[in-house]
Amino acid sequence: MTGPRYTRLAETLPATVPFVGPETQERARARPFRARLGANESVFGPSPAAILAMRQAAQEVWMYGDPENHDLRAALADHHGVNPAHVTVGEGIDGLLGYLVRLLIEPGDAVVTSDGAYPTFNFHVVGFGGVLHKAPYKGDHEDPEALVALAAETGAKLVYIANPDNPMGTWHDATVTARMIEALPEGALLILDEAYVDFAPEGTAAAVDADDPRVIRMRTFSKAYGMAGARVGYALGHPGLISAFNKIRNHFGVGRIAQAGALAALGDQGHLHLVQRRVAGSREDLSRIARLNGLTPLPSATNFVTMDCGGDGAFARKVLEGLIARDIFVRMPFVAPQDRCIRVSCGTAPQNALFGAALPEALAAARGG
Amino acid sequence: MTGPRYTRLAETLPATVPFVGPETQERARARPFRARLGANESVFGPSPAAILAMRQAAQEVWMYGDPENHDLRAALADHHGVNPAHVTVGEGIDGLLGYLVRLLIEPGDAVVTSDGAYPTFNFHVVGFGGVLHKAPYKGDHEDPEALVALAAETGAKLVYIANPDNPMGTWHDATVTARMIEALPEGALLILDEAYVDFAPEGTAAAVDADDPRVIRMRTFSKAYGMAGARVGYALGHPGLISAFNKIRNHFGVGRIAQAGALAALGDQGHLHLVQRRVAGSREDLSRIARLNGLTPLPSATNFVTMDCGGDGAFARKVLEGLIARDIFVRMPFVAPQDRCIRVSCGTAPQNALFGAALPEALAAARGG
Repeated sequence: MTGPRYTRLAETLPATVPFVGPETQERARARPFRARLGANESVFGPSPAAILAMRQAAQEVWMYGDPENHDLRAALADHHGVNPAHVTVGEGIDGLLGYLVRLLIEPGDAVVTSDGAYPTFNFHVVGFGGVLHKAPYKGDHEDPEALVALAAETGAKLVYIANPDNPMGTWHDATVTARMIEALPEGALLILDEAYVDFAPEGTAAAVDADDPRVIRMRTFSKAYGMAGARVGYALGHPGLISAFNKIRNHFGVGRIAQAGALAALGDQGHLHLVQRRVAGSREDLSRIARLNGLTPLPSATNFVTMDCGGDGAFARKVLEGLIARDIFVRMPFVAPQDRCIRVSCGTAPQNALFGAALPEALAAARGG
Repeated sequence: MTGPRYTRLAETLPATVPFVGPETQERARARPFRARLGANESVFGPSPAAILAMRQAAQEVWMYGDPENHDLRAALADHHGVNPAHVTVGEGIDGLLGYLVRLLIEPGDAVVTSDGAYPTFNFHVVGFGGVLHKAPYKGDHEDPEALVALAAETGAKLVYIANPDNPMGTWHDATVTARMIEALPEGALLILDEAYVDFAPEGTAAAVDADDPRVIRMRTFSKAYGMAGARVGYALGHPGLISAFNKIRNHFGVGRIAQAGALAALGDQGHLHLVQRRVAGSREDLSRIARLNGLTPLPSATNFVTMDCGGDGAFARKVLEGLIARDIFVRMPFVAPQDRCIRVSCGTAPQNALFGAALPEALAAARGG
């Protein structure tokens, strides 16, 4: 009696997962966190209108959601001044990245990203047998020129950049992105992950022609719209590429409640602006706490503040562990030299205060340990 | 300026989708359906406890769901008398079928199913380049012996059977499934889709050893639990196979609201039993309506009744179109000779009455047309 015959690729894949969730850590610690500031969720929550829409949709959950996501796509198209044919909706940006990689990458194909950028993208690339080529960060920013050069050198089919960047929180002006697109080698598709762009200064979001076949932009309801647990992301791109998703996607994958919530959230731009202001205030608060403790907060265009602990990766890891031991859930960048930092998501004032109280203790323990 | 360079496989894939949703039809008709009896949803809805849990979870939707689906998997394991290591949760059975096919099938690999069985499974097989080999139905039942023989002949890596079957509603006793498993050729994995098994007589659900590496069972909250719009399915199988899903799945794909709802639904077995009784009553009602109109209802172990219209596929299609023209959403099997039938999901008494009023008109129009 033998087991399944996996693909050659599946046999080689590691069992690792991109992220360990806070619940897993809580179960391992047998103690809940007091402040959940590690996953860049929006503690300020979604629009009340979105909550209401989801509560109402719960009554109708016996029905499958519309597999075309018609109403949401129409509203998104209107919001962005494009056509619904430029928009596809999926199970978070994570789900959309998986579909996109599947459409383009077969074993051995080259893909370019930054060393230390979004691990779930790498998870999908490896999962389809792609070969990752990584450009280092430059001054804690992703380096568009290096990414483009590496794409040309490797013949990459896909180039990934997040603007603003996670995990550093840094960003480029839209003019930099525009130059990057013009400089892309023929046949390379740029994935512009704009998950955090709602938190960024005016002039950060790329002004991309929706019909430009060289770029696909990814957006999400998980960050500024405060709906991480609903799993709704969307992509904006050339209609040919957008329609290709229909060849492979889980057509009923975005459920009825999620669609209703996203539609209502999009309709309440006032709440979005409120969240933007609260996040800006929280960023200042966190930056002040960092400086008070001798850390250097990086400028951020996101809903988190990455703090340079002033030492190496081992030291930052000790600080991280000290915070977690004090029931503060935070994360840190994975790759040197960015791993000298910890990454703290914007909390409410009381949550930031908990972090502020734990940080000096964690630093002292890290220095003494 | 060129577009993306797709994989050779993606270039060959058709743009077709497995199902056209009722919303798409409503938009095309510019008129809503009066009775939604085409997608085998549960008009009897989920447990009130599940609705309450989802409404409460909507407040917490700013948090990602637990990527391990820990609590739900633990409850499912308890429910089935297995370990959590035997259980994986995904974005509906559709999502899980996609992951499973991805793990096993590379271009050219053989897969066996019945001609006319679940199209979304075929969509995934084609989507990963698998080669479908189809055994005909036998007396409106899937034919386990023919499926096994075809698997042996083609060296299939995967064999799909639904018990009870969709779209015919017929079923096999668990002893038949057990014999099928014993007869499987070495190296073939049986996918036992038990989406509808909650509606079936005692003795239908396979008594599979959870450690048996030859079988993976699929279950869902979309049917008897009435949560199609939440997108929660699960698979029961050997821990080695179950853990392989972690190599490729969208770890955050099942959202917080969906997990909370499924957990509460599972906890309310009383509601499940109520739905089972209501579905049984509705099946009798629909069967009576069919017979009153000279159609032959097939025995059903599901939440739908497949009705033999007594003619060919062209005639059944006219009946279907007549029903849709009268604002009754139903579907029909795709493949001859099963396409002589229409498939009607169990409705409430008023919904069945709408169907019962429309059917004679649709039949008259089909006969006259």
